Amino acid sequence: MKHILASLAILLAASAATAQENYNGNGSNDSYQLLPDGRATLRLKAPKGHKVSLFATFVPEAWADMTYNDSIKAYEYTTAAPITNDFHTYKFFMDEVGFTDPENVHVVRDVTWQNNYVLPKGDGNDHATLMSVNNVPHGSLTDVWYYSPSEQKSRRMNVYLPAGYFTDTNRRYPVLYLLHGMGGDENAWPMLGRVPQIMDNLIARGKAEPMIVVIPNGVIDVDAAAGYGTAGLVQPQAEFPRLFTGHYEMAFPEIVNFADSAFRTIPDKHHRAIAGLSMGGYNSANISRQYPHLFDYVGLFSAATIESVTTGERLKQFLPAELMNTPIFENFDGKLKAQFEAKPALYWIAIGKDDFLYDANTDYRRKLDSFGFPYTYYETEGGHTWANWRDYIINFAPLLFK
Amino acid sequence: MKHILASLAILLAASAATAQENYNGNGSNDSYQLLPDGRATLRLKAPKGHKVSLFATFVPEAWADMTYNDSIKAYEYTTAAPITNDFHTYKFFMDEVGFTDPENVHVVRDVTWQNNYVLPKGDGNDHATLMSVNNVPHGSLTDVWYYSPSEQKSRRMNVYLPAGYFTDTNRRYPVLYLLHGMGGDENAWPMLGRVPQIMDNLIARGKAEPMIVVIPNGVIDVDAAAGYGTAGLVQPQAEFPRLFTGHYEMAFPEIVNFADSAFRTIPDKHHRAIAGLSMGGYNSANISRQYPHLFDYVGLFSAATIESVTTGERLKQFLPAELMNTPIFENFDGKLKAQFEAKPALYWIAIGKDDFLYDANTDYRRKLDSFGFPYTYYETEGGHTWANWRDYIINFAPLLFK
Repeated sequence: MKHILASLAILLAASAATAQENYNGNGSNDSYQLLPDGRATLRLKAPKGHKVSLFATFVPEAWADMTYNDSIKAYEYTTAAPITNDFHTYKFFMDEVGFTDPENVHVVRDVTWQNNYVLPKGDGNDHATLMSVNNVPHGSLTDVWYYSPSEQKSRRMNVYLPAGYFTDTNRRYPVLYLLHGMGGDENAWPMLGRVPQIMDNLIARGKAEPMIVVIPNGVIDVDAAAGYGTAGLVQPQAEFPRLFTGHYEMAFPEIVNFADSAFRTIPDKHHRAIAGLSMGGYNSANISRQYPHLFDYVGLFSAATIESVTTGERLKQFLPAELMNTPIFENFDGKLKAQFEAKPALYWIAIGKDDFLYDANTDYRRKLDSFGFPYTYYETEGGHTWANWRDYIINFAPLLFK
Repeated sequence: MKHILASLAILLAASAATAQENYNGNGSNDSYQLLPDGRATLRLKAPKGHKVSLFATFVPEAWADMTYNDSIKAYEYTTAAPITNDFHTYKFFMDEVGFTDPENVHVVRDVTWQNNYVLPKGDGNDHATLMSVNNVPHGSLTDVWYYSPSEQKSRRMNVYLPAGYFTDTNRRYPVLYLLHGMGGDENAWPMLGRVPQIMDNLIARGKAEPMIVVIPNGVIDVDAAAGYGTAGLVQPQAEFPRLFTGHYEMAFPEIVNFADSAFRTIPDKHHRAIAGLSMGGYNSANISRQYPHLFDYVGLFSAATIESVTTGERLKQFLPAELMNTPIFENFDGKLKAQFEAKPALYWIAIGKDDFLYDANTDYRRKLDSFGFPYTYYETEGGHTWANWRDYIINFAPLLFK
């Protein structure tokens, strides 16, 4: 018996580089250490003589050189300022080869990169706390496949079901449809967006109504995120032929119908919201404009409000005509008018001052202003970043279904 | 508009090291290429002058040196033989630093390591095909928290719900409880075990009954896998004080009660199975022996059948007495007799010839033989590996609920 326990322990040790280390800022370890003053030290154990850099969201300009510390045989870097209470990502580069921290198992994919993530311990009322797993009732994240009649195939979505969904089986819930950006997929909001943790905490604090969050895959050329679909372990792709062509938006009622059939939703306009980031904001504007009686709440997060910049033009000038055979782009202003005549409960536009889409959003707001269409505007610092999109969902979700 | 699409594309390219690459053996790429004869070539792009090794499940003795190819500026290694049609993992080591492949986003955690994974394209009837996402009806994997009265805290589990669970809402299902090993958690069977894919395919082929698979966290000192619980982003730990002490097993009816309340189960012995690997096999033997009327099917996969080696002794000789205050170890033989008198539909023991627990399993089978207790024995090549545990679930699941 002692022999067997010992063997099991040895077996573990063989694949256990480290033990009892802490990446949430409460403790310290060899590769990431939060200092008492809020700064962080990063370390990579490696032999001397290499060029080692840190690529991180908590480093100015994203990059920093690391210097060798002979006494611990590791490359080191300490941030100049305290790192912000947010979900941060990083990786190392050694002699031009970029890789994740060998001593931190917590990784997240962003398009075609894996990065490590860390989450500084918050003070209870900040974003870091809202993004953490706290001692509150927890909802469930479930992946579900729906059949798309227009695509004639099954497609994957992630669905957040609020705490109690599986045990309080008579209760019905409103639904937020939450859309990812270009290069993303149905795993982006749950992973990089920390949606399950944020929703658990907002609901537990009474700040957001208990709601279902449906997170579909917005790339209709595929059925699922890379590695989760029938295409196998392909790498995520930067381009797909039917992105931006309107087919996804026209077919969106299929997703709503599925959600209403599979989950205990409240299936009416007053209990539906749609929001998305970047391309997902473009999708959300298109879908809510095309189907003005489907959603009462609309959120455009750093949205690619392309149509606004090309008033009087059409996307078909830039995309092949055979890909554009959908009515989504017809009668833009007329549909927008119909949408606002139906008086949405909230039309929420959020953008960072440094976002490359800032001017496009300004143009779009001018268009809405010129028609006298009411909306709520939320302007932040920063650019086209996940830090902003997590901030936007934290600020948007409490406005819904009230 | 052209400007905005271009900006989005540039934004993507900034984080997109590669595009359209293929890790399922159908295509080729820079870092993993399956050759026509079934061998694989691995490549790491890096400057010359380093010592680079490959650590992989498809390399004899797990390690291989990689050699520099000047023409492509990369380190290369080609396997000597075709790689087997299984889920394989690998990583690179450069000058003593181990890291995952920068060009493969598909990673999986095994205790305290991240590894890449690849899945060679199967021929339709092999393990690789059963582990792949095919064009069949897909079930759902959902994470759910249950309240443990004995631990007075909520704890996380993963649950596989078969295809149709959310739409065919009158149907009830049998349940397999599937337990992880030491160093593992509730994410191990879904990720390394490929349980959602295997179950989807076995059910679609009519080889396994549609069933729910409940995958709890077996480390009662924590509430969830590292990074998914209230402890925050701690590293996974190799040791916990109450592993092997019987508390988890004694409290297991809490998990069954929760599953019966939260999911549409068929809540009787004939529709319940329990199985586990290594420590999870030890847990499964203990639980099914303690509660002989709970499970009709028992699977011990490379089980740590510790008690058999210490007949007449007690674990308390090796663990602190204050941790052993559970009745799970009392009256071992009497409980075992009661279990077999209740005539389980299946008592299935699987072990690899090279497993360090082979002799312990032989002892345990001798004990069962000496009492005349019937069981099914499945002996394979290989050792204490995920390749074997995936093979065992593929062979065990079709025997259930028939």
